Amino acid sequence: MTDQPRRRSRQARKAPAAGRQVNYKQLKNPFPPMNAVSEDEARSIHETSLRILEELGMRVLLPEARALFQAEGARVEDDMVFIGRDMVEDALAVAPKSFPLKGAHASRDLTMELGSLTFQPGAGAPHATCRVKGRRPGTSEDFRELVQITHHFDALHLVPTLVEAQDVPIQLRHYDMVKTALVHSDRAFFIYSRGTPQVQDAFEMMRLYRGLSQDEFEAAPYSYTIINTNSPRTLDIPMAQGVMDFARANQISIITPFTLMGAMAPITPAGAVTLSHAEALAAITLGQLTRPGAPQMYGTFTSNVDMKSGAPAFGTPEHFRASLLAGQLARLIGLPWRCASGSASNINDSQGANENQLALWGCLLAGATTVVHAAGWLEGGLTVSYEKLVCDMDAVNAVADLCTPTEATEDAIGFDAIAEVAPQGHFFAATQTMARYQTEFYQPVVSDWSNYGSWEEKGGLTAHERATEKWQEILRESGPAVDPDRYGALTDFIAKRSAEGGAPPVS
Amino acid sequence: MTDQPRRRSRQARKAPAAGRQVNYKQLKNPFPPMNAVSEDEARSIHETSLRILEELGMRVLLPEARALFQAEGARVEDDMVFIGRDMVEDALAVAPKSFPLKGAHASRDLTMELGSLTFQPGAGAPHATCRVKGRRPGTSEDFRELVQITHHFDALHLVPTLVEAQDVPIQLRHYDMVKTALVHSDRAFFIYSRGTPQVQDAFEMMRLYRGLSQDEFEAAPYSYTIINTNSPRTLDIPMAQGVMDFARANQISIITPFTLMGAMAPITPAGAVTLSHAEALAAITLGQLTRPGAPQMYGTFTSNVDMKSGAPAFGTPEHFRASLLAGQLARLIGLPWRCASGSASNINDSQGANENQLALWGCLLAGATTVVHAAGWLEGGLTVSYEKLVCDMDAVNAVADLCTPTEATEDAIGFDAIAEVAPQGHFFAATQTMARYQTEFYQPVVSDWSNYGSWEEKGGLTAHERATEKWQEILRESGPAVDPDRYGALTDFIAKRSAEGGAPPVS
Repeated sequence: MTDQPRRRSRQARKAPAAGRQVNYKQLKNPFPPMNAVSEDEARSIHETSLRILEELGMRVLLPEARALFQAEGARVEDDMVFIGRDMVEDALAVAPKSFPLKGAHASRDLTMELGSLTFQPGAGAPHATCRVKGRRPGTSEDFRELVQITHHFDALHLVPTLVEAQDVPIQLRHYDMVKTALVHSDRAFFIYSRGTPQVQDAFEMMRLYRGLSQDEFEAAPYSYTIINTNSPRTLDIPMAQGVMDFARANQISIITPFTLMGAMAPITPAGAVTLSHAEALAAITLGQLTRPGAPQMYGTFTSNVDMKSGAPAFGTPEHFRASLLAGQLARLIGLPWRCASGSASNINDSQGANENQLALWGCLLAGATTVVHAAGWLEGGLTVSYEKLVCDMDAVNAVADLCTPTEATEDAIGFDAIAEVAPQGHFFAATQTMARYQTEFYQPVVSDWSNYGSWEEKGGLTAHERATEKWQEILRESGPAVDPDRYGALTDFIAKRSAEGGAPPVS
Repeated sequence: MTDQPRRRSRQARKAPAAGRQVNYKQLKNPFPPMNAVSEDEARSIHETSLRILEELGMRVLLPEARALFQAEGARVEDDMVFIGRDMVEDALAVAPKSFPLKGAHASRDLTMELGSLTFQPGAGAPHATCRVKGRRPGTSEDFRELVQITHHFDALHLVPTLVEAQDVPIQLRHYDMVKTALVHSDRAFFIYSRGTPQVQDAFEMMRLYRGLSQDEFEAAPYSYTIINTNSPRTLDIPMAQGVMDFARANQISIITPFTLMGAMAPITPAGAVTLSHAEALAAITLGQLTRPGAPQMYGTFTSNVDMKSGAPAFGTPEHFRASLLAGQLARLIGLPWRCASGSASNINDSQGANENQLALWGCLLAGATTVVHAAGWLEGGLTVSYEKLVCDMDAVNAVADLCTPTEATEDAIGFDAIAEVAPQGHFFAATQTMARYQTEFYQPVVSDWSNYGSWEEKGGLTAHERATEKWQEILRESGPAVDPDRYGALTDFIAKRSAEGGAPPVS
């Protein structure tokens, strides 16, 4: 197991051929937002969510959070908090509509706001799978490799947990995973909200490795967490701590109720999103009460279950509708927001691709700022696949490519090029073609466009099979540069904290 | 080989279980149209296309078509026709913006206009492939089976040639294929423009089998053809005859230049669409000169090639951009129009699904009236796959499902349902769930949502492998009812024409 970046390979040292230059690093969503329902209906959903918080209340398990709600005027009965609409509206009035999310250097800084577009690969899976080692519980090495693969793709803007490093004891695991994310990638990264001690450790590791003073660190977000409510209507202790810890440190909390229609939410897309919206507003209110102006993103992850088996489904029409509904609500409250793609397929096949891409288009037409689980996610999140991650990138990259405007200059429209070629002639050698042939077209990651005969001669491999060689090639690339002093500071901190016993998760 | 509809199987006779009722038969496109370029730039493309027709001209190989152009005032030099913008604008002024396309009965009638949405499976392939028989030159039996599979799916609105029945002699093949399309499906269907004699045969077969007088037949379109120009700037003899024959019979011609960027068209999306637009306008002008008010659809099929090998690619960002550009031009001239999905993959894998679906979204956001090659197309059209046809339908059906509005009634928003379930409870038995669980969600064709363990127990099959059983099940279904008199009239006609030697294609 290696967690040090490898020596730059001979292949990576070669001078780049004249080729297509694209910038997938900072994207604006070019797709027109689509409404699922009328503006009046969207407002009805919002009003119903406010009524839910006021009349039915939210169960909040963290005493400190309940006390804060109560101090600001909410009615609290046992662990139930009843949040008035004024309190929610005050929170929405101070929640920022735009904020940065900083990477290791300026070219990796993002702006989180409605209209910007970022992608995150599949996250939070207990298992990893690849064609070399098969399906297995995730390890530290799997996580490192998946971070390296993520780092390779410019259109993946955020580094999440991908798979859980289950071979590392739970009280030490966050040291290993945060270190890997810092050392092997230059992107802003995800920190689990598994209680204040782990979160504080992660903040400190980031501060040390990025070389930031405490003030510099708190001046802008460098990390994000995802807050999943326990639907219906419950905010548990580590999640409430996460909202408050991230707000205090000026880091981003993305509030994402995970509401499966017919299971932990109403069976209708509108109903499930109404519940999700209420829960999101409760956690956003908690964040803004903790620190007015704290950077928080709105979010939803709403899909349906198979009513015969209770199994979750993704990339369905219902998932798509829920994304559109959430997008309308995000525009209503004006916050940047996260949506999710995903697939319930058990293997990287056409089902996996079709579900993932259908869900992706739901996110895009919903105007999501961040598309989570955009690549690599199988089994509804129980596994991240190396091959699927690489294959899905042909869809994600194509979308990133479409963020560049279509050229319609006189040269692109090309009357002269058309005049140059006789009827039934060809354009292969035309002046315009010669000037552009190395740069005009998207170059795919895994897609193979050879004819059947050539493809068969090369072994007749599916995209899934071809993807193995691709991720193996990526793992031979060098990663980001490492500053030895900062690396030393990071490893010293980990050694010290590990010797102290680490930090078990809070539950 | 059977071409008679089978006896209704026991399975098909069973009373339908209470289930989801959807109508995928007549769809309106719910997705917001997306512009690739500004309105001024779109107008520049249109103007450049008019200039191409005026200054560079179009090669028209059919003397009768050249004579018609000349009689109406076009300049003709040898086989080149120079078409003035006035003539094009006059044609666009009389070309209808909306017209019917009739199936075997009213529930299968379509309205072709901007805003309506129809799907056609992959068409025109020399090969068929399936997991049972492998990849082979298409036969009459393959074509029949693929028509039966197409007929099964309500969201497939048009029956094209799918695969070429290469086991039937070329001068008799159209009898076999038109008969199969008539007998095994109730949809409007495609007729090849391979010269006037074959087209007249096909019209007569349709008239006989649909039980229409000549006047009834000519009163509304029952069939369509696709006119591919020979890009760049050539309209060959059978295609020009097709435009004129279909116009005279009040049947639909869909004008579709097939312009691969960098090969038979400029390398830029804007340039390739400029050429395609010019060629489409030339053929639309010919149709309207032949019979003012003839039903014609605008169309394009523009994608790129791999500049290393010259191989065509589909489902690329460039294909997507070209679709958007063509959609803007279709809205500019106001005609219903056809766009195309497709994949260059050699097998029904994740590449095939990703390319096909990316191209599908290009068509949808471009506002296409008809999406051709929406399911089953492999190898850039050299093969139609039984399994891919079935797998792609999960994407097409999901889109068809999204054409139904999202419900946001008080019951759907569901305050009462949410009030009924305690925090951290579940909705499986909630009143709202019980009332809707059989009807709320889309039921997939091939997608398998079982967990990994159950899926593995069932054999761990990919969607591609599972699809075989699905199409085999479809082939056991009964097809449309057959009127013995009309069937007799059809077969008598075929026998008579076959005895006369049939009709070889014109070239």
